[in-house]
Amino acid sequence: MGLDEAATKPHEQLAAHLTERMAAVNVLIRERMASRHAPRIPEVTAHLVEAGGKRLRPMLTLASAEMCGYDGDFDVHLAATVEFIHTATLLHDDVVDESAQRRGRPTANLLWDNKSSVLVGDYLFSRAFQLMVETGSLRVLDILSGASATIAEGEVLQLTASRDLSTTEEIYLQVVRGKTAALFSAATEVGGVIAGAPEAQVQALFDYGDALGIAFQIVDDLLDYQGQSSATGKNVGDDFRERKLTLPVIKAVAAADAEERAFWKRTIEKGDQREGDLDQALALLDKHGTLEATRAEALAWSARAQTAIRSLPEHPIRTMLDDLAEYVVARIS
Amino acid sequence: MGLDEAATKPHEQLAAHLTERMAAVNVLIRERMASRHAPRIPEVTAHLVEAGGKRLRPMLTLASAEMCGYDGDFDVHLAATVEFIHTATLLHDDVVDESAQRRGRPTANLLWDNKSSVLVGDYLFSRAFQLMVETGSLRVLDILSGASATIAEGEVLQLTASRDLSTTEEIYLQVVRGKTAALFSAATEVGGVIAGAPEAQVQALFDYGDALGIAFQIVDDLLDYQGQSSATGKNVGDDFRERKLTLPVIKAVAAADAEERAFWKRTIEKGDQREGDLDQALALLDKHGTLEATRAEALAWSARAQTAIRSLPEHPIRTMLDDLAEYVVARIS
Repeated sequence: MGLDEAATKPHEQLAAHLTERMAAVNVLIRERMASRHAPRIPEVTAHLVEAGGKRLRPMLTLASAEMCGYDGDFDVHLAATVEFIHTATLLHDDVVDESAQRRGRPTANLLWDNKSSVLVGDYLFSRAFQLMVETGSLRVLDILSGASATIAEGEVLQLTASRDLSTTEEIYLQVVRGKTAALFSAATEVGGVIAGAPEAQVQALFDYGDALGIAFQIVDDLLDYQGQSSATGKNVGDDFRERKLTLPVIKAVAAADAEERAFWKRTIEKGDQREGDLDQALALLDKHGTLEATRAEALAWSARAQTAIRSLPEHPIRTMLDDLAEYVVARIS
Repeated sequence: MGLDEAATKPHEQLAAHLTERMAAVNVLIRERMASRHAPRIPEVTAHLVEAGGKRLRPMLTLASAEMCGYDGDFDVHLAATVEFIHTATLLHDDVVDESAQRRGRPTANLLWDNKSSVLVGDYLFSRAFQLMVETGSLRVLDILSGASATIAEGEVLQLTASRDLSTTEEIYLQVVRGKTAALFSAATEVGGVIAGAPEAQVQALFDYGDALGIAFQIVDDLLDYQGQSSATGKNVGDDFRERKLTLPVIKAVAAADAEERAFWKRTIEKGDQREGDLDQALALLDKHGTLEATRAEALAWSARAQTAIRSLPEHPIRTMLDDLAEYVVARIS
């Protein structure tokens, strides 16, 4: 690895290494999101697809396939599938959360309307299934339809679990697996499957994606309480104001005395929030050391991702994925 | 056919003939809509699944498979798939249209919330794909994922086409194919495919479902202007009040003079509706004979469905499907 490469971030190294394949993915995405009959579809999706996300998920599929020696064309189909599923869930999230910002731009929901977000999401989801059917691999279809069900299940679980103080760390982990890790692990796993990699490698790729996704989401939830809004595109305390029960608060509730419990009950369960409550919440997280404990969990999942990826044979991409697992926790290290 | 059977409606005859297979479909539906982690999912879906719809679509799949001599078990999987896709689109429609009633009950949307409707719909959609993956038939997967894309495309097209006076009968037909006929034709087609029927029969089954679905939707749109609310569960003029451009109005706009055009522009495009406008609209439909012309189109599609189904070998089910094509237009005959 040259000095220049060493100086760039791991996802940028991946992007540089995969430039040609990702260009093919982008061509396929544009081609398949077009609709002869309904021009609004590409209007809505272009807004998201062109918004300059990191395209981490499709890169994980391409990287996994290449690392396992794949030399066919269906890695591009599967990478586009994964990005379509991701975009569809973002569109449906916009409806669902009434979120005002996504990647620093207004959401599709505000630019267009709820109807378009729901239906265009459905369209992308269907197109994703058509793309994977073309690969002719029933195992790939099984993995990605299962991941889609897990994503939806995780989001529904989040509806009932957030704002409920009895939510445990175990339930939190199920939600995180659904909303984030399921698509990461499916993205890496199908790369190995399409390449015909040995089962142990396919399992390692799954484990890597799963742990990477969990680390990624825990970091996100941690930064909500200690990040700077310029770095995250969110304001400190958004989750608190939206009464989302994430790991730092779940840990603080578990350690709370009666008075503290009453505070969480009022602010999170009942939603009765007053001036100074965010400061009080931050003080309680500090008192019980839950931000530090949350940070330690993120680091542990990052280490698990590294252990998994290191079980694969040496490969330049393996190094990049190893570095990526470290990079996702770099913001909190 | 005995006197008793002759006295019942064709969909009731189908239901009686398919009792055992439909019981297996219902077991599978209940089994697969369960979620270990998210109990809200069966709560929301039970509301729709138990609401006592006619289950016409899954019956079409079972009927087509049996008629083509299928004796395996995957007809039940495919029938459940079709019902899941249908239920998912109903849930998403509820969010989308802010409709207040569905099958005479409050919509899921009002009983629960938008979030649940979107996410539980996504869950059912994913479960539908998992069910069809289990059949192992890539052709079936191709047909049903294609139908799903056509459904979403038709609904998006409807968003842009309704309230737009330049909408043609051709566009109306595309919308109707998407929102209704695509799932009917996929339901009958996959029945033939899973049975390994000859291509000409598979095509005839597709044509039957397509024409039946179109006739069904045109009747629905016609009854909105001349039905009785007790029979349809809708009030006369709902589409007018919601400014939906359906066939009777599209034909009246095409025949309108300048003054009439201004009326449609004000009421449908601009949504400026006053007392007496519905009566005026009905008078214009009457003046140009568009209800009669719409009725003739529904009858023509019904006849096309009968022509298609009669190309198949004689079979008791064939007679029921033939009668069904007549029955869907009986309300307007």
